[in-house]
Amino acid sequence: MMLGTVAGTVASTIRTPSLAGQTLVRVVVAAGHAEHTVVACNPLSAGPGDRVVIAHGAAARHALKLPGAAIDATVIAIVDPDKS
Amino acid sequence: MMLGTVAGTVASTIRTPSLAGQTLVRVVVAAGHAEHTVVACNPLSAGPGDRVVIAHGAAARHALKLPGAAIDATVIAIVDPDKS
Amino acid sequence: MMLGTVAGTVASTIRTPSLAGQTLVRVVVAAGHAEHTVVACNPLSAGPGDRVVIAHGAAARHALKLPGAAIDATVIAIVDPDKS
Amino acid sequence: MMLGTVAGTVASTIRTPSLAGQTLVRVVVAAGHAEHTVVACNPLSAGPGDRVVIAHGAAARHALKLPGAAIDATVIAIVDPDKS
Amino acid sequence: MMLGTVAGTVASTIRTPSLAGQTLVRVVVAAGHAEHTVVACNPLSAGPGDRVVIAHGAAARHALKLPGAAIDATVIAIVDPDKS
Repeated sequence: MMLGTVAGTVASTIRTPSLAGQTLVRVVVAAGHAEHTVVACNPLSAGPGDRVVIAHGAAARHALKLPGAAIDATVIAIVDPDKS
Repeated sequence: MMLGTVAGTVASTIRTPSLAGQTLVRVVVAAGHAEHTVVACNPLSAGPGDRVVIAHGAAARHALKLPGAAIDATVIAIVDPDKS
Repeated sequence: MMLGTVAGTVASTIRTPSLAGQTLVRVVVAAGHAEHTVVACNPLSAGPGDRVVIAHGAAARHALKLPGAAIDATVIAIVDPDKS
Repeated sequence: MMLGTVAGTVASTIRTPSLAGQTLVRVVVAAGHAEHTVVACNPLSAGPGDRVVIAHGAAARHALKLPGAAIDATVIAIVDPDKS
Repeated sequence: MMLGTVAGTVASTIRTPSLAGQTLVRVVVAAGHAEHTVVACNPLSAGPGDRVVIAHGAAARHALKLPGAAIDATVIAIVDPDKS
């Protein structure tokens, strides 16, 4: 899984049907000196600035119990602020 | 999922059968200081300059309801222009 | 699989149900001049400073015998200190 | 999927059985300022210098109708020379 | 698939059960100016300095006929020394 910081939401009126009702968040993931942005489903309602753990692939769909969804990244944990 | 910008289409007369009828777009994805190009199926008809969300792997095939297709990336959302 | 060094644990009270009971560790993986952090389940109880091997995707779930879990990375081996 | 340029073939007498009869090509993929090489099966007989589209994972096996093969990358389209 | 050079073995007494009996090798893969190390199962007995092709994900398990193993990378071919 990946560690990242929630940077905001992604608003998209035009989306594939299986994304219906899903909140999408932008999560900035540090990779060495660079950073990249992952778009993930947010079933745990993580907010901007939250440190989160993201799962990719089938694991992302397992987290939502949506095996047939067009989703490959989901926030699966919010890191406790003071213990990491 | 990944965020990127549609940069154009990919024309390919010679292609594997399961790509028949699919429009392929080039999507430029920022990864830190670098960029890379992803080729994705475009069921939502995103156009050049559109900011889009791409799903990879089985999720890409779920978006097209083509579980057996030789496809590993699909545009699954077009980002609303003024809200992101 | 990837080689990395355990850097600590990830404490997360708010997590997806299928992570219940799993210890999550931060593993620093060297990729050329850069490094990046992977969060992995730790069934072998690797400790800080241990060199470990991480498996990703379905392999990570196989290691835990949890095919439906929202997990995509697991520590699957601890490298012997003096033989690598 | 990825865009790349065929750079040559890979000759390997010692190979896993499910690769029997497969032609392997080296495809150079640009990723920002860097490049990396992908080895892919070549069912469309792309030649050196051809711009191609590569699919990864299960999609690569779908392209060959070999669901159980030890293959994770396949050329699935040859980009038309003058239209991209 | 990826091209790399075998750099040595990985000795790990503490390992997940499904790795039992597997030889693990460190394979250095060039990615542009950087390099990274992949740990892979070695059913073809590639030795240090051998140029090899690695398959990832389910393909790695197909190569070993171990669909349920906690393995995500396997050496699937040894490049002929003088023809590549």
